[in-house]
Amino acid sequence: MMERTLREHLDREINNKTKPLGALGVLEQIAMQVGVIQKNIHPKLRHPHLLVFAADHGIAVTGLVNLYPQAVTAQMVLNFIRGGAAINVFCRQHTIGLKIIDAGVNYDFALANHPDFINAKIKKGTANYLFGDAMAPQSAMASIQKGEAIIKDLAKEGCNCVGLGEMGIGNTSSASLIMCAILKCQLEDCIGRGTSADDQLLNTKIQTLEKVYKFHDLQDYYSNPIELLSKIGGLEIAMMTGAYLQAAKQNMVIVVDGFISTAALLIALEMEPEIIHNCVFAHRSGEKGHERMLGHLNVKPLLNLGLRLGEGTGAALAIPLIQSAVNFLNEMASFESAAVSNKIL
Amino acid sequence: MMERTLREHLDREINNKTKPLGALGVLEQIAMQVGVIQKNIHPKLRHPHLLVFAADHGIAVTGLVNLYPQAVTAQMVLNFIRGGAAINVFCRQHTIGLKIIDAGVNYDFALANHPDFINAKIKKGTANYLFGDAMAPQSAMASIQKGEAIIKDLAKEGCNCVGLGEMGIGNTSSASLIMCAILKCQLEDCIGRGTSADDQLLNTKIQTLEKVYKFHDLQDYYSNPIELLSKIGGLEIAMMTGAYLQAAKQNMVIVVDGFISTAALLIALEMEPEIIHNCVFAHRSGEKGHERMLGHLNVKPLLNLGLRLGEGTGAALAIPLIQSAVNFLNEMASFESAAVSNKIL
Repeated sequence: MMERTLREHLDREINNKTKPLGALGVLEQIAMQVGVIQKNIHPKLRHPHLLVFAADHGIAVTGLVNLYPQAVTAQMVLNFIRGGAAINVFCRQHTIGLKIIDAGVNYDFALANHPDFINAKIKKGTANYLFGDAMAPQSAMASIQKGEAIIKDLAKEGCNCVGLGEMGIGNTSSASLIMCAILKCQLEDCIGRGTSADDQLLNTKIQTLEKVYKFHDLQDYYSNPIELLSKIGGLEIAMMTGAYLQAAKQNMVIVVDGFISTAALLIALEMEPEIIHNCVFAHRSGEKGHERMLGHLNVKPLLNLGLRLGEGTGAALAIPLIQSAVNFLNEMASFESAAVSNKIL
Repeated sequence: MMERTLREHLDREINNKTKPLGALGVLEQIAMQVGVIQKNIHPKLRHPHLLVFAADHGIAVTGLVNLYPQAVTAQMVLNFIRGGAAINVFCRQHTIGLKIIDAGVNYDFALANHPDFINAKIKKGTANYLFGDAMAPQSAMASIQKGEAIIKDLAKEGCNCVGLGEMGIGNTSSASLIMCAILKCQLEDCIGRGTSADDQLLNTKIQTLEKVYKFHDLQDYYSNPIELLSKIGGLEIAMMTGAYLQAAKQNMVIVVDGFISTAALLIALEMEPEIIHNCVFAHRSGEKGHERMLGHLNVKPLLNLGLRLGEGTGAALAIPLIQSAVNFLNEMASFESAAVSNKIL
């Protein structure tokens, strides 16, 4: 079926439900989008999953950009595995499968056989990008490939809806640098408080990232994602880039979380702009910069709850709304089937 | 425990979860609110319910304010009972109990023994308020009492969280008049398209309601809810007023839906301003006027999805977010229990 015909079919289906025209607002747009992604007027979300990509950042050991010590990345991974973090709570509530991916945490986990843990460690954290590249181009490419492989496995298990989240002390800094390089805006507008930095730390963070920006000539950046990831990326961000690319190839509904997740998407979009059609934007993060990213992409997210936790928490909270959109399309009666008048007086 | 002490306990509990301070945004405020309502640092939502109050409006037979014929109210009640409406879909998705209440539909239902149907019919619709009162003060009072009784029964069944929705062709008009009488703003700013009125019908609606406003001297309205309900109310709106009042008395979490539900709340607040502390505002409706109502109450709703369907659909979609707030409070690990560093570098 041609996309235009499909859209007409979906439109008719949506408009013939027992409700005033357009009365389900954004949920009608989501129903349309999911129908188009799945090429089906009765789409289904199968085994929705949330993937949390975790990695460490060399810059974090300096304390110049982060409030919490680097060790917290590994500690939080263990918290995820034990089920005690916010993302665990929300995934449990909504029966969303949760996988924790070690993309490059500076810690040796003894979790080889844990069903929710994926060892995809490229290396034990990036190098400090203040004085050199965060990683070799080979590491960036290996990360992307790992991200793709993880999504392929997930698709084989029957999953067709995935949210991407992250954990990595210091990773708002990578995200800010990526944002600034791609959007070509003021660096200061890209830098927020991350995990609640105070004014003094925020100033230090801005000054530090200005140095990094100049050192890596990011003002000259033009459409070379591997180079950008190598210079100032994070291993989790690179892996998410690969996951986005493959999730679109697998025709998945992709649920985009907050600031860092959207930064990874910006890179993926440089490589394949079409993947945006698979993306549902979960929420507007409380982290400074995210609103401008969303504006750049010309998208309006489902939620605006002032969340700034990462982990994919915004995505997990938005998945039930996407499910509601799919459910109304599949389950609501039509005017005819319910014998409800659709006549204007 | 004093409320101040309780708040301090809740604050400590929330802030000690494994997340940056304040990182769960609005969900932290909801967790605090539900904890305060239940006077418990481990609150629980028990048997959440959605009540849909349905009634007919005399004005609707004129066709001056509504797009769909009055018969649609009864048809939609039958659609609710058969499970085919949007509110059924969302309640099923989230295991929310659903009760359909005939507050005054102009139709004799043969549903006496249906478990989800409550016959609370006061009379078969209001009179046309263009040339007289919509109902006698006794009917308004009887409606309020019925609403209170329904909530008392629900509380006996163990429910401590209720969303109130409505169905009634023509009821955005009552809501607009109530809003204007209480907020003392321009009538035109209170009148929207309801179920998708076109420009011509919207103009007729505005002109009609201006006549009603003058006929009933609503510009002189001052704090007499029974009189206001008698003049231009709906039976479902009056019953919802009683439900709000009693739900607060029963210490329930009250989930406020859209334009008409908030109009009923405005009346309830005239009778008992303290009930606002029990209210969680579900969403900003797409119906003109709702945003201003929310501004008047100085509240920010959880969702903004452009919904304008009524039935309690916004409330049903917001209940999972309230559940998420309660769940993170009960289920997330603390920094100590998870051995996560809460030390600033």
